[in-house]
Amino acid sequence: MADTLELHLVGIGTGNPDHLTLAAIEALNGADLILLPRKGEDKADLADLRREICARVLRADVQVLEFDLPVRASDGDYLAAVAEWHDAIAAEWQRQIACHLPEGACRVALLIWGDPSLYDSSLRIAARLSSHAKTLQIKVVPGITSMQALTAAHAIPLNELAEPVLITTGRRLRERGWPADAASVVVMLDGGCAFQALDPDGVFVWWGAYLGMPQQALVAGPLELVAEEIAEQRAVLRDAHGWIMDVYLMRKSPT
Amino acid sequence: MADTLELHLVGIGTGNPDHLTLAAIEALNGADLILLPRKGEDKADLADLRREICARVLRADVQVLEFDLPVRASDGDYLAAVAEWHDAIAAEWQRQIACHLPEGACRVALLIWGDPSLYDSSLRIAARLSSHAKTLQIKVVPGITSMQALTAAHAIPLNELAEPVLITTGRRLRERGWPADAASVVVMLDGGCAFQALDPDGVFVWWGAYLGMPQQALVAGPLELVAEEIAEQRAVLRDAHGWIMDVYLMRKSPT
Repeated sequence: MADTLELHLVGIGTGNPDHLTLAAIEALNGADLILLPRKGEDKADLADLRREICARVLRADVQVLEFDLPVRASDGDYLAAVAEWHDAIAAEWQRQIACHLPEGACRVALLIWGDPSLYDSSLRIAARLSSHAKTLQIKVVPGITSMQALTAAHAIPLNELAEPVLITTGRRLRERGWPADAASVVVMLDGGCAFQALDPDGVFVWWGAYLGMPQQALVAGPLELVAEEIAEQRAVLRDAHGWIMDVYLMRKSPT
Repeated sequence: MADTLELHLVGIGTGNPDHLTLAAIEALNGADLILLPRKGEDKADLADLRREICARVLRADVQVLEFDLPVRASDGDYLAAVAEWHDAIAAEWQRQIACHLPEGACRVALLIWGDPSLYDSSLRIAARLSSHAKTLQIKVVPGITSMQALTAAHAIPLNELAEPVLITTGRRLRERGWPADAASVVVMLDGGCAFQALDPDGVFVWWGAYLGMPQQALVAGPLELVAEEIAEQRAVLRDAHGWIMDVYLMRKSPT
């Protein structure tokens, strides 16, 4: 059991190396070991981006270790499968740290897509390591989220003046419909175009995929006019690249 | 009337110069003129921070122009007063640009606290300049928000697993109570401790002020145990510094 383990979860933004903050660069260069997960062929671009970031900002003596991420069970109960998957990832982190963190060193860093706080599992996985070190310190470096890259690309505010915003998931939007408490809704983790299940009347949508990356795609317009275009572009792009990450903001006109 | 005006709204994070992204540094150094507003004595720290950022990351030949921001009327209808204030700021931006942007130059940048998309007026003010240039291009560089600095400081996720998050204001929370659609609620722009108006049963709160700055203050705990402590700290700190910026996340335990 290690005496102290400092785990730095470093937000890297959404695909543009220029999203990196000075704090992120400092945290990565301060690490004794950087863990760089490979998620399999279909998301090769994402591991490549992490490698590019490491090559661009790291001092030559910082140790970067690539490892294969366990695969999530795709059947059975969703939350149970996720919990099991997080256990497996934590065990893999632990194994890699035990094998590769130099004697007497304690600082391990991971490059986290977007920001570690928003629809990311690394904080929950990190908490599972508390039984493996006498003192576990988790440090978070915030990063630009896809939500921010979306509003920046469209040059729009997230909220209307002094009004609230709901951040939700595709699954939730499909199950519950338009939320009661917000005229502005950000939808993440939507693999199934949940916006198609809404009454589009009076709804404006701003959509973006691969935000910050060279292949960035944007669509904006009244939902009833652009819903089909977004669904089609999404399918074409996912086929072309083998994966897609997208996000959208919808706003209802004041009634 | 200028031919083309490129207005770069550059998110700078919440008080830690290390929140700056590489994209922000590049955008600031690419500007022909940087407008740096002064908000009066009570928020002198904020203008100082902008000056510190400029001194730290700008090439020597980038022109930085300080100007006094118009003051918002504090009486009358809130939204009307805000609209009038935004008109006055846009006119001031326009005047400064007309006087100080070199002939043939077009790139003007502003350092925006947090991220230009979130509870910030610069996009709305910028839109008012469209009548002053034949072509107005608004470019947004995202920055770390106080919400992200808060979750990073407490090392907590913003959302529960696959669950939504509502971002709202103190005024709205006070008027409407706990929202229907989210177990996690971020409250911004709360000058009056609106959390004190809630039933605290089962609510956990993470609060932070001056996030990212040397004087950062954090409190976390069950709302019924820490509400008073937060209100007291808030009053003491505001008196000591002459101003305060704070934000909090609350979560209801699953029932």
